[in-house]
Amino acid sequence: MRRILVLYDSKTGNTRRMAEHVAAGAGSVPETEVRLLPIEEASADDLAWCDGLAVGSPTNMGVLSWKMKRFWDETAAAVWGRMDGKIGCAFSSSGGWGGGAELACMSLLTILMNFGMLVFGVRDYVAKQFTLHYGAVLAGEPRAEREIDSCRCLGMRLAEMAAGRSKNIGS
Amino acid sequence: MRRILVLYDSKTGNTRRMAEHVAAGAGSVPETEVRLLPIEEASADDLAWCDGLAVGSPTNMGVLSWKMKRFWDETAAAVWGRMDGKIGCAFSSSGGWGGGAELACMSLLTILMNFGMLVFGVRDYVAKQFTLHYGAVLAGEPRAEREIDSCRCLGMRLAEMAAGRSKNIGS
Amino acid sequence: MRRILVLYDSKTGNTRRMAEHVAAGAGSVPETEVRLLPIEEASADDLAWCDGLAVGSPTNMGVLSWKMKRFWDETAAAVWGRMDGKIGCAFSSSGGWGGGAELACMSLLTILMNFGMLVFGVRDYVAKQFTLHYGAVLAGEPRAEREIDSCRCLGMRLAEMAAGRSKNIGS
Amino acid sequence: MRRILVLYDSKTGNTRRMAEHVAAGAGSVPETEVRLLPIEEASADDLAWCDGLAVGSPTNMGVLSWKMKRFWDETAAAVWGRMDGKIGCAFSSSGGWGGGAELACMSLLTILMNFGMLVFGVRDYVAKQFTLHYGAVLAGEPRAEREIDSCRCLGMRLAEMAAGRSKNIGS
Repeated sequence: MRRILVLYDSKTGNTRRMAEHVAAGAGSVPETEVRLLPIEEASADDLAWCDGLAVGSPTNMGVLSWKMKRFWDETAAAVWGRMDGKIGCAFSSSGGWGGGAELACMSLLTILMNFGMLVFGVRDYVAKQFTLHYGAVLAGEPRAEREIDSCRCLGMRLAEMAAGRSKNIGS
Repeated sequence: MRRILVLYDSKTGNTRRMAEHVAAGAGSVPETEVRLLPIEEASADDLAWCDGLAVGSPTNMGVLSWKMKRFWDETAAAVWGRMDGKIGCAFSSSGGWGGGAELACMSLLTILMNFGMLVFGVRDYVAKQFTLHYGAVLAGEPRAEREIDSCRCLGMRLAEMAAGRSKNIGS
Repeated sequence: MRRILVLYDSKTGNTRRMAEHVAAGAGSVPETEVRLLPIEEASADDLAWCDGLAVGSPTNMGVLSWKMKRFWDETAAAVWGRMDGKIGCAFSSSGGWGGGAELACMSLLTILMNFGMLVFGVRDYVAKQFTLHYGAVLAGEPRAEREIDSCRCLGMRLAEMAAGRSKNIGS
Repeated sequence: MRRILVLYDSKTGNTRRMAEHVAAGAGSVPETEVRLLPIEEASADDLAWCDGLAVGSPTNMGVLSWKMKRFWDETAAAVWGRMDGKIGCAFSSSGGWGGGAELACMSLLTILMNFGMLVFGVRDYVAKQFTLHYGAVLAGEPRAEREIDSCRCLGMRLAEMAAGRSKNIGS
């Protein structure tokens, strides 16, 4: 069994809904155990537990939210040195297209790399003109099929990457 | 008269069409002279000439295109040291949403900063859930009104910034 | 009189010492009023007051600190829409060279751009193999002459940019 | 046998010397075959061949060089879709500290992520105040022991990551 943690911060509920779809995608891969946790309920033990990690934050000024940052600056510091080689990815909901969600994902991946993790995006397209090369990004909440598929695809790919496999799962 | 240069690389024509709208937006601001040039026709003199600069590239692997990079590495080197304090911004067309257009814009802005320029994005929204915080970004070519408005807004803001004014011009 | 705000977060004192040198550099430019404030003492009014802004944070996981992020997510939100066209720059102290200080500066500049500000780095070298193209970056505290000069150079350039001038002030 | 490719562009020879140390570090790990290639001599087949990849470029305006970008835009396109899950990392030599080498590494990693690769940095310090959290970065060529160690550490970690192991190899 591979162990996947989907960790998120959410203010309006948009990123939480993304997280739910990411978790569902990961859970659809056989032999995968998934934990879905808001940062208020997550601990360093959860980070130590997982093989693969998806981290989601609202896009706040083009960077992860301060609450998510505080989690990594303070809570997560306890496992610095024990995350090497684990697999990580990111997702973010912004107020609008062009609003910095890709940059927010990169800020999340920057943190994961600092912890020694292996990070990835998904090169596949989940629909025409819709992809997640640096993590799943949305404006608002996931509603359209392609938006939900983008989140699910991230979770599936994470579960596969964490299992040492990497198959083309997109369109 | 303030002088605006809209400089672009384009492979499929998508970024070129964005450039045309950016140029039109800049030209709509009184007392503005606009040059619209593909990199094949631009020289270091054009960079020296302008007060404000919008640079556009296709999103190629999340970074500006190699042709646009070559322009800055080689052609533009002649004016390194003479661009300090000029105003710069970016735009990019990608294959899909989530495909790296924001990151490509940031790679363009990184180069402009290296030349000593002042760079900006636009905080305003041009439509519901549609903005250009780090430059105008699209999937494919500009078709919908909000996509065209995004390009025009960038050009207008650039012309205003280059004139030392900064008014809220978005929605 | 142009008004410069040097705003910083500091845990060990390293970023605070950088801030002091940035402020001294700005203050060395004639007709410049400087406020040097830790984020605990800064308000949205200070942001509204200034013409130019230097923001410093420790490099925490390659991104600005959570306390500095909280300031922008919460306190600064009150002046979103009133910062357009103001001049901004960044500085950061990291645990080591290669430790993410440049990336932390870019995360700060990303936030300032989101507020509509014009941001810059300094293309000049303050000493052999020592520059601040994306903001002043150090490992630890400023001690060597080139390290102090880097901070001072940022402050001077900020004051000049805020006054609408841009002269070569480096080596 | 795991297969490691060290791919570089170099103008002054500085990045080439970094590449040699990266390759030596990778080669010091048992059961590792290493190819060291300048981009002029590399092909898409070399990318397909490797399990792990280190890519080095001079820092040119804070972004990878145009020649390295051209390699990825044109030559590498042939293996897009066949690099998923391979391990990647970056290194860069800049003109000076604070000159954008970290950002250049991130531009390289952005490209590798676009190809579906897993990318990493090294959280360990190779000496006091000297690390490579987002890839090995230097001002000029590798001379001091810590500078050489930084390059070697990247190669070793790459070989280990590509073998599915991740041990603390730093100080």
